[in-house]
Amino acid sequence: MTLDRADFSGIACPIPTDGDRITLAHGAGAGASARLIDTLLRPHFANPALDAGHDGAVLEAAAGRIAFTTDTFVVSPLEFPGGDIGSLAVHGTVNDLAMCGARPLALSCALVLEEGLPLARLERIVASMAAAANHVGVPIVTGDTKVVERGKGDGIFVNTTGLGTVPAGFDLRPQRVAPGDLIVLSGSLAEHGVAVLSVRDGLGFECDVRSDSAPLHDLVAQMLGAVPEVHCLRDPTRGGLGAMLFEIAGHARGEITLEESALPVAPAVRAACELLGLDPLFLACEGRCVAFVPEAHAARLLGALRAHPMGRGAAIVGRVTQGPPRVAVRTRLGGRRLLALPAGEPLPRIC
Amino acid sequence: MTLDRADFSGIACPIPTDGDRITLAHGAGAGASARLIDTLLRPHFANPALDAGHDGAVLEAAAGRIAFTTDTFVVSPLEFPGGDIGSLAVHGTVNDLAMCGARPLALSCALVLEEGLPLARLERIVASMAAAANHVGVPIVTGDTKVVERGKGDGIFVNTTGLGTVPAGFDLRPQRVAPGDLIVLSGSLAEHGVAVLSVRDGLGFECDVRSDSAPLHDLVAQMLGAVPEVHCLRDPTRGGLGAMLFEIAGHARGEITLEESALPVAPAVRAACELLGLDPLFLACEGRCVAFVPEAHAARLLGALRAHPMGRGAAIVGRVTQGPPRVAVRTRLGGRRLLALPAGEPLPRIC
Repeated sequence: MTLDRADFSGIACPIPTDGDRITLAHGAGAGASARLIDTLLRPHFANPALDAGHDGAVLEAAAGRIAFTTDTFVVSPLEFPGGDIGSLAVHGTVNDLAMCGARPLALSCALVLEEGLPLARLERIVASMAAAANHVGVPIVTGDTKVVERGKGDGIFVNTTGLGTVPAGFDLRPQRVAPGDLIVLSGSLAEHGVAVLSVRDGLGFECDVRSDSAPLHDLVAQMLGAVPEVHCLRDPTRGGLGAMLFEIAGHARGEITLEESALPVAPAVRAACELLGLDPLFLACEGRCVAFVPEAHAARLLGALRAHPMGRGAAIVGRVTQGPPRVAVRTRLGGRRLLALPAGEPLPRIC
Repeated sequence: MTLDRADFSGIACPIPTDGDRITLAHGAGAGASARLIDTLLRPHFANPALDAGHDGAVLEAAAGRIAFTTDTFVVSPLEFPGGDIGSLAVHGTVNDLAMCGARPLALSCALVLEEGLPLARLERIVASMAAAANHVGVPIVTGDTKVVERGKGDGIFVNTTGLGTVPAGFDLRPQRVAPGDLIVLSGSLAEHGVAVLSVRDGLGFECDVRSDSAPLHDLVAQMLGAVPEVHCLRDPTRGGLGAMLFEIAGHARGEITLEESALPVAPAVRAACELLGLDPLFLACEGRCVAFVPEAHAARLLGALRAHPMGRGAAIVGRVTQGPPRVAVRTRLGGRRLLALPAGEPLPRIC
């Protein structure tokens, strides 16, 4: 693809190009910016709200609750087994909406491109993003493109912000998590984290693990349809199940205990974690969710999960009991250890 | 400020720090991330939707039209006369909502921080963002924070995405711009662009120009209240009035002619533009808007603008006539020249 002219519907202007790479001109708001948007972005994302060409999209909404969530993705490398930054951004934001109980209504897409990024790579990522959004059935209705100088960015950063509608009857909040709740996990842990690390510069290793990156909206709709009594939903992304449980423990009114023997971890993931000296409890998933649900409803919820293709590996992995706000693990040998939250490293830029 | 512990409501953990600067640990999703959010971001942005601590905000909305718009800000330098990247991000997104005729309902804020960013600088920008949002009366209800390695970002990039409600009765779209419309500009041109360039590394020059960065929602409400017949509103940001008019010409059904003698440009801006060899028509404003309105309503609209503190410098600067989709300027000497769209450079990272 060559971006050599901007036509503005018939108004031609020449554009300085750097062959088939992003240049600063693509971010300066005039001819090259328009040409990039019109030839590379709009054709993939086309929908009536976006095509209106205004400063923002205008959508019709019924009265009710709206969920609103934002994430910027800076994953490195940009492409990894099972996905790329484009599909990951769509899944991540759709999933944050789903964790609010919301059905996705619309996404925005804001790109920060580094000078020198090959246009072919950009188009591959944009096409992946569009495919992921089409699969979910959510339109990308508004966007923004900026360019920064070589060495001031890293290929591409993607912000996706999502709007969703929350059906009446659900009240999903961490503050509702309480003693008596069981913790139900939809599938195996740590596959996204291991897949990204397996192809990271300076760390790459051979393994067959693919990212679990996937949209959870349909699984969540099925779960909440079957068991509206769910107290809270979360997806264990950056920081993994472990960090997410610490955050919930801060809001909930009880102590969380995980059953080590119940935690689903694929053998290849376990092997990679042993190789790297990492705990799968603290590695990211991008297509799993965790439900906190009163014990009386847990079996029904597990059944609803297992009846969905994305929940076949679901398991009850722990419970909330009376106690201080902390997270413990009951080991395979019947012992009990308090979980410690890692200070921060070693996993930046996993999403 | 020292971010040396994360407490997660009582669960303490030590965090590796780099004195008073951003480290990769601040972006890894565990203790340091939480501490950064809880001590530096939440206190500035506090509001009930944000404080709920969920993966997204849940808002109540009445039935009707919702405007949704996104922008990532990569302005360089981060602070400039009259503003900084934080206030600019709030104003830019509030203004894109206003251009849709919308009143701001909520903003999101997603930050990409570069390792090594001084925490004091981050806090100054976050405080400025919060002050700008408070001034508008719009809450920042959901957010995200990522950290990239030194040399993979540039201090801080800010994405703000906005939600607004569009009152019934307006239909603002570039497709409605038509022959017979006059072009009404709310104030003087190019002040934001000149202010940023005046402090840019390698280009800095002495001048008294401050950015015009400001929120337009109140001015727009007054304009539309007085003259609901407005066809389209735009803010001439990146690429300036010139690039914006080319974009409108692509959608409208006519030719645009500007009156050079009517264009408001401050003497200091004109002097700076002559020094730099730049045309103020193509330099960004961040607190001005342009209305396309049928001639019969233009005088009333001008009156409404001039009655508002932010519209005192308003002027009718051109008109749309039958003709091909192009932009012309009638010069002070009575001549007529077609405007040429600059190819892209020389002004990256102006917003």
